[in-house]
Amino acid sequence: MDKLIEAINTTHNPSVVGLDPTDQVVPAQLIDSFHEEVADQVDDPAEIPAMQRAVAYFEFNRAIIDAIAGIVPAVKPQIAMYEALGPAGIDTYEMTCEYAQSQGLYVLGDIKRGDIGSTAAAYARHLGGLNAQDGDALDLWHEDAVTVNPYLGTDGITPFVDAAKAADKDLFVLVRTSNPSSKEIQELELADGTRLYERVADLVEQWGAETLGASGYTRVGAVVGATHPEQGKQLRERMPRTFFLVPGYGAQGGTAQDVAGMFDAESSGAIVNSSRGIIGAWRKNGGYDESMSADDVLALVATSARDAAIAMRDDLEAALA
Amino acid sequence: MDKLIEAINTTHNPSVVGLDPTDQVVPAQLIDSFHEEVADQVDDPAEIPAMQRAVAYFEFNRAIIDAIAGIVPAVKPQIAMYEALGPAGIDTYEMTCEYAQSQGLYVLGDIKRGDIGSTAAAYARHLGGLNAQDGDALDLWHEDAVTVNPYLGTDGITPFVDAAKAADKDLFVLVRTSNPSSKEIQELELADGTRLYERVADLVEQWGAETLGASGYTRVGAVVGATHPEQGKQLRERMPRTFFLVPGYGAQGGTAQDVAGMFDAESSGAIVNSSRGIIGAWRKNGGYDESMSADDVLALVATSARDAAIAMRDDLEAALA
Repeated sequence: MDKLIEAINTTHNPSVVGLDPTDQVVPAQLIDSFHEEVADQVDDPAEIPAMQRAVAYFEFNRAIIDAIAGIVPAVKPQIAMYEALGPAGIDTYEMTCEYAQSQGLYVLGDIKRGDIGSTAAAYARHLGGLNAQDGDALDLWHEDAVTVNPYLGTDGITPFVDAAKAADKDLFVLVRTSNPSSKEIQELELADGTRLYERVADLVEQWGAETLGASGYTRVGAVVGATHPEQGKQLRERMPRTFFLVPGYGAQGGTAQDVAGMFDAESSGAIVNSSRGIIGAWRKNGGYDESMSADDVLALVATSARDAAIAMRDDLEAALA
Repeated sequence: MDKLIEAINTTHNPSVVGLDPTDQVVPAQLIDSFHEEVADQVDDPAEIPAMQRAVAYFEFNRAIIDAIAGIVPAVKPQIAMYEALGPAGIDTYEMTCEYAQSQGLYVLGDIKRGDIGSTAAAYARHLGGLNAQDGDALDLWHEDAVTVNPYLGTDGITPFVDAAKAADKDLFVLVRTSNPSSKEIQELELADGTRLYERVADLVEQWGAETLGASGYTRVGAVVGATHPEQGKQLRERMPRTFFLVPGYGAQGGTAQDVAGMFDAESSGAIVNSSRGIIGAWRKNGGYDESMSADDVLALVATSARDAAIAMRDDLEAALA
């Protein structure tokens, strides 16, 4: 986790921008602008909508990345938004990760994978890559960390930990997610009086134990939603060596005050994610007009995202002061 | 689930073949045979190993599919094995699903996705596809069902249920997985004396309730490992309207006797998966010789898989008689 913490310290900004393109946040004129180019290239016209979005989403991401590089330390592309376009979208996901890394950003792949041991080893190639013929590893996905689901237990996690150690990367295990119905499973009271998410928290501390970095945090982080401030504060004490990824700030209702308790005494120990609040900021900007060209709206997307990222940084800084 | 059950009844075979290609089950000479062709096509030689496998894995799958179509009702490609090759592998996954459907097989995409509501809706496009410009949905992934992780609770499941209803497809939620350490989370005893996997089982019955089919089973199935025969028998009673996907037969140690209790009184209600036992059967076949050509070994892969699939069908039939 040292690499992420260094990036946070350099930017003085413990936040991460979620790159989650959808038809709600990617301007329609940008998608439309690729129609003819794509129509000339596909074999079957039915493929146009997916291909058109795959191209537009990448241009959207590139504009955001260019606007926020240097302001924020990290981006978190949510692979579901790309899988929603089929294989063409997966290409956009990988290109987005590669471009973000090339601009100096730490890339947190929000993939929430989880499976039995032999299968988890295959997913762990997200971190470890594939051995090339000269013995070097080919980085397939260009992620610095991924999110993982704990429901399968230790043997579904170990391959990711091993790959993280070997490749100087990290993982974040779901502990307490930000969505309303997460309580149905994660908050269940166990026979010994603890809650399920607390038991998972204890496992996460164990899973990371042998990967402690110079920063005092391990390579095995935890996802703890901003929508559970009290639980987050308790988890901070329960998991002293575990770095937190905190989703749910902004659009999902979490505030800077809500997340303050998830940081440690040195205002480290956590990174806060905002997705729609940053990449969709252009929609709340008075400068938007439906008649704008694709280029003009992309410029508005970029400046709005940059302003929103700065506002979030300042909001967190004030709450952590 | 009616479509799957009809396919099972037609083949008299409640089994599904896992299409999980790895370097352990795909013959080396088949991978090698694509080296030159791939080397001529990639920009960067570092990409050769992934591309070469992407092509070889598809040819391997096609040979298996051709060999088992008509014998087994369904295939279950595990997407992790394809993601392990990066975006090129994802293309092979999608092409494999499409080819299997074209040969009349029910395609169960083993993706184990799980996320918050808005993100789950994006993943649910695996079932629902993307609306094309004429209003029809473009089927992006060519799956008839997918597997889903329950850790996020109801709002992570509902989008899949809605997509399944709209597209006449199904989903299977992880309840009790086949791997050894699954007990660390799934078997935890709750304050009310039930086990976590039993609580998840109750949720799965609820999630399916409004999708009951003519067969008496809902569109929301459950993953219950063959390695837990006693729990499986109890879950069969606890989840009377939930169809089971049973992994862990064969290579993971589960026998036909172990899975018999997961079927209902009419010998319906479950489908049993075998992956390595079928697609890797050629390795235990006396006919293999390292000097065989790629074509010859592919023919051996096909006949061995077919023989193993028939043996599994007969094994299950005897145990269910």
